[in-house]
Amino acid sequence: MTNQNNHTSALHEKDGVQQPESISKASIAQITKLRRKQPTADDLVNGILEGNKTMLSRAITLIESTNANHLEKANKVIADCLPHANKSVRIGITGVPGVGKSTFIEAFGKHLTEKGHKVAVLAVDPSSSLSHGSILGDKTRMEELVKDENAYIRPSASGDTLGGVARKTRESIILCEACGFDVIIIETVGVGQSETAVHSMVDFFLLLKIAGAGDELQGIKRGIMEMADLIVINKADGDNIKKAKLAKTEFNRALHLFPAKNSGWQPKVTTCSAITKDGIDDVWKITSDYFNLAKSNNYFEAKRAEQNRYWLTETINEQLKNSFYSQEGIAPLLKQYQEAVQNHELSPFIAAQTLLKKYFENLER
Amino acid sequence: MTNQNNHTSALHEKDGVQQPESISKASIAQITKLRRKQPTADDLVNGILEGNKTMLSRAITLIESTNANHLEKANKVIADCLPHANKSVRIGITGVPGVGKSTFIEAFGKHLTEKGHKVAVLAVDPSSSLSHGSILGDKTRMEELVKDENAYIRPSASGDTLGGVARKTRESIILCEACGFDVIIIETVGVGQSETAVHSMVDFFLLLKIAGAGDELQGIKRGIMEMADLIVINKADGDNIKKAKLAKTEFNRALHLFPAKNSGWQPKVTTCSAITKDGIDDVWKITSDYFNLAKSNNYFEAKRAEQNRYWLTETINEQLKNSFYSQEGIAPLLKQYQEAVQNHELSPFIAAQTLLKKYFENLER
Repeated sequence: MTNQNNHTSALHEKDGVQQPESISKASIAQITKLRRKQPTADDLVNGILEGNKTMLSRAITLIESTNANHLEKANKVIADCLPHANKSVRIGITGVPGVGKSTFIEAFGKHLTEKGHKVAVLAVDPSSSLSHGSILGDKTRMEELVKDENAYIRPSASGDTLGGVARKTRESIILCEACGFDVIIIETVGVGQSETAVHSMVDFFLLLKIAGAGDELQGIKRGIMEMADLIVINKADGDNIKKAKLAKTEFNRALHLFPAKNSGWQPKVTTCSAITKDGIDDVWKITSDYFNLAKSNNYFEAKRAEQNRYWLTETINEQLKNSFYSQEGIAPLLKQYQEAVQNHELSPFIAAQTLLKKYFENLER
Repeated sequence: MTNQNNHTSALHEKDGVQQPESISKASIAQITKLRRKQPTADDLVNGILEGNKTMLSRAITLIESTNANHLEKANKVIADCLPHANKSVRIGITGVPGVGKSTFIEAFGKHLTEKGHKVAVLAVDPSSSLSHGSILGDKTRMEELVKDENAYIRPSASGDTLGGVARKTRESIILCEACGFDVIIIETVGVGQSETAVHSMVDFFLLLKIAGAGDELQGIKRGIMEMADLIVINKADGDNIKKAKLAKTEFNRALHLFPAKNSGWQPKVTTCSAITKDGIDDVWKITSDYFNLAKSNNYFEAKRAEQNRYWLTETINEQLKNSFYSQEGIAPLLKQYQEAVQNHELSPFIAAQTLLKKYFENLER
């Protein structure tokens, strides 16, 4: 265009006005910012260490992701948070639906934040992935606690297996601790195997009950009773107080039938009302008594070390199984062999050997 | 010799007497027989199906062998016996040392052979490989039964793991059944995990107790109580009768606290004396009542099918673990990672992932 003036042909065209760019720069900046919004592992770790709950949530979402590409990043976040974790107490709380678990955790959590603690509430509920109704999913059930800046509430991870959910929860504990939360509450439903998983990731196990009609021991899962460091009989208010006290006596008697715990702790029973708040302070007093004992006799630290070893082994065993059962072609073959052993046509051991031979051959390919 | 008279030379030699062969034919036959003594799989199967206890013993020894070359032959024997098995009742008997387990089994077993049954007694005792003292190793403890031609007594297989011992016992059951034994008794010690293994291979589980001083419920492993279809209070003789009856009442009360069994069977308590034989017939009567119920409501067959599926899964899972933990180089690495997770230097999940990566890489090589 520099020699434009030298040509006077009829074909000469006037310079047009400068057109605006087809995409506004402001929009580009906006989009770039949004695209960049995915924080790096370092961003997440720094945020967590500063006590930023948004960053904590995003990091937990990363841990929960089933996208294989997220695994490495999640692992880096966990590894970097690990040296800053481990300075909390971890309390497991279980109880069947109807005992008032949410109301209790809200009252208990508020009591703790008022005393200057920072409280994180996580959940292990393997059923949530199926029912889409996590026990902590409806956050409105803990209205007060959810608004408390010293509290953090996170519903259960969803996952196909309890093992998967448990793993994610246990990694989330590390992040919550690195984020400054010094009381970690792990909630679970009072049914199935999830209690065992929760029991193996907490320092203290609390079983929530209500005074029922008739025989107090009827229908209780003994395995869960045996795990409990403290049984709290909730809804001890109004007409219920007398019944709750009776239940306390019965549970106390039942607890004495169990062998002594390695911690040297004699499990306790107490009553409370999450509505009137009566007895909530006792729950924390007893819990603190336990931690004083367990820390002074070194059981606390020994148990955490043992739990770490347990999770190492559990993870290995679970992933070995996953590798086998998810290998292409194994499922239909397994089904076929299961039917054969069920009908006594094939010994289970010979069937297993044949399937394993197939699996290892496929691996080597 | 016919032309002897025609030669009169001095060089003539008299015919000597026929010398015996340098190796006696009888010895050759004997040695050949001995060499051939290692029976083929078919020999074993035929022997077993004919009810030959020597062949049964040899086949069980083959199953118990840790020599990899024996595996194929053992598998063939089991596969060929399988169609002829499964026509027995399988009874698990447990009780801590001191309750008189051997004396009880002898009295119970004799009672059964007198009624025309053929009784095989096997044992699951994973400790026997370490202590070299199997619970059934000292056969003289069942002097009468061991001489009974309708009884077969076999001490516990030895093995490094409970899983290994359990597998061998379960395969031995198949052979015993094919050999015509219609009552299979599996004895185990009243401690540890072996009860669970035995429970998953029998139709009926019998817990042997004695009346103790003090609280009858004290120190009982609830898991084992919960498995029991029948609690037999032994040594109910002389001065003990009153105490045994009291214990019976207490156990009955305790049993009612457990949830109902899928079999529809309400667990029973009875007393007996293996010395005076009082009550031994009741034990068999109750056991038979159970089998009548379980067979009529199809629970018996459903449970066996479920057990077969269980053993298929268990064997797969156990062998997957064996493959990992026994891989060269894994053990020292595992130890190193265990220490790291124990000291909170490494997340158990990251440690597990690293170890598994190594394992699978080695497999593919």
